[in-house]
Amino acid sequence: MERHLDQELSDLKRELLRMGILVQTAIFESIEALKDLDSERANKLIKDDKVIDELENAIDERCLDLLALRQPLAVDLRFITMSMKISTDLERIADLAVDIAQRVLDLVGKPLIKPLVTIPKLTSLAQTMVKDALDSFVNKDVPLARKVILLDSEADKLRNLVQKELIEDYMSKDLSAAPRAVPLLLIARHLERICDHATNIAEDVIYMVNAKIVKHHPERLK
Amino acid sequence: MERHLDQELSDLKRELLRMGILVQTAIFESIEALKDLDSERANKLIKDDKVIDELENAIDERCLDLLALRQPLAVDLRFITMSMKISTDLERIADLAVDIAQRVLDLVGKPLIKPLVTIPKLTSLAQTMVKDALDSFVNKDVPLARKVILLDSEADKLRNLVQKELIEDYMSKDLSAAPRAVPLLLIARHLERICDHATNIAEDVIYMVNAKIVKHHPERLK
Repeated sequence: MERHLDQELSDLKRELLRMGILVQTAIFESIEALKDLDSERANKLIKDDKVIDELENAIDERCLDLLALRQPLAVDLRFITMSMKISTDLERIADLAVDIAQRVLDLVGKPLIKPLVTIPKLTSLAQTMVKDALDSFVNKDVPLARKVILLDSEADKLRNLVQKELIEDYMSKDLSAAPRAVPLLLIARHLERICDHATNIAEDVIYMVNAKIVKHHPERLK
Repeated sequence: MERHLDQELSDLKRELLRMGILVQTAIFESIEALKDLDSERANKLIKDDKVIDELENAIDERCLDLLALRQPLAVDLRFITMSMKISTDLERIADLAVDIAQRVLDLVGKPLIKPLVTIPKLTSLAQTMVKDALDSFVNKDVPLARKVILLDSEADKLRNLVQKELIEDYMSKDLSAAPRAVPLLLIARHLERICDHATNIAEDVIYMVNAKIVKHHPERLK
């Protein structure tokens, strides 16, 4: 029975990692679609999202079955419940990549505001935070999870900066700028929310490993 | 033992409802703060959010204890796991009310774009969806949960309409409009996301009652 549970938990972990890779790909594709205003790429990403949706449902069912049939305790129980939370966050990150792709479709055919102001910095931060959050999960790496959480305030700053630049340098100077600037402003918001979800995952990893709730308690990170 | 679990589940439900009422109050306060550009009201709401954060943690801990100590099955297991998901959605709704309050602070001192375009309609939809989602949870009311889910596309439409109006009627006609229009545009986005979370809660209610996953499967609503 014990060995059996170990095997099932390792299957669950593999499934979550598969989902993690698909989600990272979705973010990458959304960003590439933005760089080239590539509607084909954006549409493909939107279409592919249903695979990730299905994975979320499958992981949920797997977790509920494990809870019902195995009645796990302590660290195993925390691993299963946090897996349910992490899959929800991953699915929402994928939805945000879809949101970015939809903003790209809004931008297609309009001259792009170059060099996309501070968005590339925010993009790269979001990718790092998601990758590190997943790595912290795989390796039960609490210091790495802590690093992700501490980066979140950087995301807020960059998003505010993008917004300020778009308003002051574009929309306040050119009446035709809004239809091009507004989608970029929303993309900055989507990227910042991806960072928020990476932060949630990192918080869940710390709870899983240490049984210590750090969500809403930044002082406990010390 | 059985009676004991019933009592604990009813305590959990009461705690979730308490959180639901606080969250509905937060939405109401954010909207009132917007109507009057009332910075005092906005600041109070932002400060009060930590009560809701603490409730989320308390509910999580309560659910994990119940899973570990009571090893519940079937409908009880679904109730506890869905309670964890619902508390996460409620906390994020409260965060979105805080986001709205922060946009209100951005708007203070600037002449408000009146009559806030289509935002009042979206506001009222968001309030209805959150209330109905919570009522469907309390009364295990699947038809009401279904109604919430079907309203979600309305929220998307209204948000798009707000965006269109703000770009075409304000930002494309007046170079000084952006600092007033952008916060409203983001508020519309926050409201639409509140509707998304209400939809998630309704989906969880249907799963809790029927053991049927409807998330990502609109056809199963029929």
